[in-house]
Amino acid sequence: QMPRGNLETVHHRALVLAQLRKQLDSLKFREAFECMRKLRINLNFIYDHNPKVFLENVETFITQLNSINHINLFLTELREEDTTATMYPRPLNVPVPSPMPRAKKVDVVCDALRNTMEAMDPDKYCLSILTSHVKKTVPELEIALQKVHDLRAKPPTAAGAVGAEEALKYLLFLVNVNDLYDHSLGTYDFDLVLMVAEKSQKDPKEYLPFLNKLKTLETNYKHYTIDKHLKRYSKALHHLSKCGEEHFPEALGLVREQKLFSEALDLYPADSPQYKTLSCAYAEHLVAQQQPEQAGLLLWRCGEPGRALQAFVSASSWRHALCVAQQVPLPPDQLALLARDMAEKLIDQRRYAEGALLLDQYAKDCEEAISALIRGAVWEEALRLAYRHNRQDIIETDLKPALLEAFASHSSFLENHTALFCRHRKRLSVVLELKEKARLEMLDEDGPDCPDAELYSEASSVMTNSKYSHSNSRISSRSSKNRRKAERKKWSLKEGSPLEDIALLHALADIIGTVDKIREELHSLLKALVLFQYDRQARKLQLAYEEALLMMEAAIPEVWQEGAPQSQTPITGPDSTANSIMASLQHQQRPTALPLPGQWSRSRVPALSPSPWR
Amino acid sequence: QMPRGNLETVHHRALVLAQLRKQLDSLKFREAFECMRKLRINLNFIYDHNPKVFLENVETFITQLNSINHINLFLTELREEDTTATMYPRPLNVPVPSPMPRAKKVDVVCDALRNTMEAMDPDKYCLSILTSHVKKTVPELEIALQKVHDLRAKPPTAAGAVGAEEALKYLLFLVNVNDLYDHSLGTYDFDLVLMVAEKSQKDPKEYLPFLNKLKTLETNYKHYTIDKHLKRYSKALHHLSKCGEEHFPEALGLVREQKLFSEALDLYPADSPQYKTLSCAYAEHLVAQQQPEQAGLLLWRCGEPGRALQAFVSASSWRHALCVAQQVPLPPDQLALLARDMAEKLIDQRRYAEGALLLDQYAKDCEEAISALIRGAVWEEALRLAYRHNRQDIIETDLKPALLEAFASHSSFLENHTALFCRHRKRLSVVLELKEKARLEMLDEDGPDCPDAELYSEASSVMTNSKYSHSNSRISSRSSKNRRKAERKKWSLKEGSPLEDIALLHALADIIGTVDKIREELHSLLKALVLFQYDRQARKLQLAYEEALLMMEAAIPEVWQEGAPQSQTPITGPDSTANSIMASLQHQQRPTALPLPGQWSRSRVPALSPSPWR
Repeated sequence: QMPRGNLETVHHRALVLAQLRKQLDSLKFREAFECMRKLRINLNFIYDHNPKVFLENVETFITQLNSINHINLFLTELREEDTTATMYPRPLNVPVPSPMPRAKKVDVVCDALRNTMEAMDPDKYCLSILTSHVKKTVPELEIALQKVHDLRAKPPTAAGAVGAEEALKYLLFLVNVNDLYDHSLGTYDFDLVLMVAEKSQKDPKEYLPFLNKLKTLETNYKHYTIDKHLKRYSKALHHLSKCGEEHFPEALGLVREQKLFSEALDLYPADSPQYKTLSCAYAEHLVAQQQPEQAGLLLWRCGEPGRALQAFVSASSWRHALCVAQQVPLPPDQLALLARDMAEKLIDQRRYAEGALLLDQYAKDCEEAISALIRGAVWEEALRLAYRHNRQDIIETDLKPALLEAFASHSSFLENHTALFCRHRKRLSVVLELKEKARLEMLDEDGPDCPDAELYSEASSVMTNSKYSHSNSRISSRSSKNRRKAERKKWSLKEGSPLEDIALLHALADIIGTVDKIREELHSLLKALVLFQYDRQARKLQLAYEEALLMMEAAIPEVWQEGAPQSQTPITGPDSTANSIMASLQHQQRPTALPLPGQWSRSRVPALSPSPWR
Repeated sequence: QMPRGNLETVHHRALVLAQLRKQLDSLKFREAFECMRKLRINLNFIYDHNPKVFLENVETFITQLNSINHINLFLTELREEDTTATMYPRPLNVPVPSPMPRAKKVDVVCDALRNTMEAMDPDKYCLSILTSHVKKTVPELEIALQKVHDLRAKPPTAAGAVGAEEALKYLLFLVNVNDLYDHSLGTYDFDLVLMVAEKSQKDPKEYLPFLNKLKTLETNYKHYTIDKHLKRYSKALHHLSKCGEEHFPEALGLVREQKLFSEALDLYPADSPQYKTLSCAYAEHLVAQQQPEQAGLLLWRCGEPGRALQAFVSASSWRHALCVAQQVPLPPDQLALLARDMAEKLIDQRRYAEGALLLDQYAKDCEEAISALIRGAVWEEALRLAYRHNRQDIIETDLKPALLEAFASHSSFLENHTALFCRHRKRLSVVLELKEKARLEMLDEDGPDCPDAELYSEASSVMTNSKYSHSNSRISSRSSKNRRKAERKKWSLKEGSPLEDIALLHALADIIGTVDKIREELHSLLKALVLFQYDRQARKLQLAYEEALLMMEAAIPEVWQEGAPQSQTPITGPDSTANSIMASLQHQQRPTALPLPGQWSRSRVPALSPSPWR
């Protein structure tokens, strides 16, 4: 070896790498390896330079190195990083090698080297083979231990071959002793465990009692105990499930503790009492997780209709609840009571049609059913039930007054929303005009070719943001839904707030969405009004809706598109510079980027106009 | 007057206008008027310069002008156009007057002048008053004629006052004689008609018989005949409706011919036979217009249940049809038959739940109903009916096999769509790479600062479009839906087609939409699978769906957003020019502008993951 220190020769890295590339290309691995060690060049380069060539010449590489230590050095230095992309970039004249398979590089190299060494001489390369197991992305400690164990059982005959003792010592040098001990336990092979434990300088008083206790256990229970000790809960459950019924409570506890419900159900036959117990436990868990419907399904299928019914009712899963109730079977009066309860709940959730079905078919109370449908503005269905049960009197007493009420409320809804839309729109044009004025004033101050224009606009946007950065950081941990809500809040509609224009755009889009959404409801109301000769009201309502839609449609291009006031200044022209264009684009893109209300499309506007009652 | 011609004095317009403004501001209307007439300045300027001041000083204006001819000149020159915005822009130092009310300018001025003149001396200003009626946006010819008529009945006493004769002559000078004749007819006043006719040089042999015939008619019928002659059909119908029952067939004919159904219904009481006949005619019209449901409503409410039923059935408006059928009432076996027919139609329209309701409740065939629900994958409702009718046997024979079939079809659906998505996506990156390459090559050829870059890119887009301009013009008359379809067709997915990248983006968005749309259906299938212990299948399907969603979600930013390959070149930098920035923005905006599939949002992805059957 050369003497080190200040007098060490200076090597130009580019020259060295060029030299190394040549050596590797001509498969002079030994020379390259020596050079790299000397000059501390990362050994990964041997592979990275041309992975394909390396993998095709692994045997040459091993033969040339001809040293367990050197091979181990190479293996232990392996990293996922591609050194030709990071430390030693390829010059332009060096061709890029064909891309390698997606598998992890370290695993590929370890496997290739090990396979070759095992084919060449497993005894000789014993320690390197162990290294290749340990160095894999997920270290194969069990296999390495097994190999050591095999060495002890059948000591190698060749001279100079490594014995079990030495191999184990080497393993302990590579791997943390506690990891190795755990993994030896995980093989369920007590010889191996003892072998490791003896080398581990662990206190025999500590591990021997545990091992001795384990030895007395039945095999499956022994494996379970070990798995649990190693926190391999799925495996533990698997073994425990084979230990017979007397251990089932223990299994149930494990399942509950580790939430292994779904795996547990796979381990017991569906008709066993254990399966049922597990299903119930699972259902309890699901109820606690606010998933009562799924709990109900589990309870029902494992033959617990009573509890299933409870779960379905609390999930408002009324169809399932009724099935279970009729399977039990519940006596008619109780069924009616159940139906009435659920209907009430559904109606509270504005699921009027479903509630009405329950009242009509199960509680046999058509009057209540029709009244629910009228409350929910489900006019046609209300009418159907009235005729089906020959209760046309309800039409006069309830339906018609409700229709007139619905007419009034829809009229004022349209009036209010149209007025609000106009107000917001007017205010928006004022705000945009003010902004445009401010922008022009700023540009004027800077002169037309000022290179700082972009800088200014960036700075101003930063300032606008910083005002809210505090409140943002406060909510960063909340759910994304909350975050979006908070995001909207910061666009305040208050006059003069910094993002008032965006707030107005969102408010306008919201109104369009809301007004557009009542289309179906309005259509069915119009039909009902016409049926009962309320032509005047129908005509008025239809006209109001049409006008609202047309007004909003007419506003869309002005509010959202390029006709908007802020783009009146042309962005390109003889005087424009790169920065002025960018600045004006940045200015423009904000309002344009806001999406139009998704539901809205030009083709949907005339939907009502062919109706006859104009 | 000054002698005109080449020697006419030259006046600088700006100076003249400044002078005029001063005169108008100091209410010297006469001087201003003379000057404007001489120098041919549009008289509208008198009003436009300051509308508020003018309207407050109309009397001064009239007194100063003191000439019927001048007032008429001013009135006839009135236009909606604001001359201070077009011909004579306001200099910056002249303050903008307060804005005027939104009403039409011409109407405002005519009314103001007329009111003043009528207050001052209606006889003296007679002709100007007539002018002010005629010049309104909608000329008030009837009123003008009435005034002439009044003159004839009560000739003015004042000396030099205008007589009826002269006034009529003046009117004929202002208005086309036929218009005036028609309008005189429209007053239903035969004196007026004759007066105009005599002055009109019309042939008395032509109009006298018509007028004489009219005179013999009953008043309402006379008015109807005149209105019809003048093509005022609504008014004609209104008068005809008052002519008694014997004229109803004529009215019906008019309603049919002019499609005045809705107006006609307002003219007859709802319980009259005419109302019923009109309703039937209206219904026939609506059926011909493909609106059978609305026809049904009209027929039902006017007491034609048989025909209403037919209309409702053909509209698949089954709820209404059942109401009518039960009102008739149809005998039970016919009602069952009707329900069965409609159910079949609904099921053909994939409205399985509705069809099942008909079969269950009206045809009393629960077996068919359940089978329809199973066909439509409405699992929960199928189960409910099975339990309700105590037909759990169907679960084994039909429901379970259908569940397994649905599992298989959904699995292959997901497999196919995932594969197609991957294929399109791979192809998209190839296409974009090729485009980028082509673009860079083009830029290279032109040199980095070539000012033609923008031109080239525009030209190329024109070329791309021109390829389709022929086919576009062919379809321009089709409906917008067809046009959109055709629009999409021109983005061919065929490899190498010019807009292949856009076609691929649309295809990808479509797949995402389709896969996202089965969420609900899949959720209900999963619940049913779990209920019947098909845990393995449920788990597999859920996993496949989750993987598909995750894969597509992961692809979205790469495919649609700024990470896309084409934006790797930075758009601003030390070397960028205005044109290069514009070009690269134009290049980028196309793919970004394509909307993401509307239904898709990040928050919806984990909807299934909390389910228990992993």
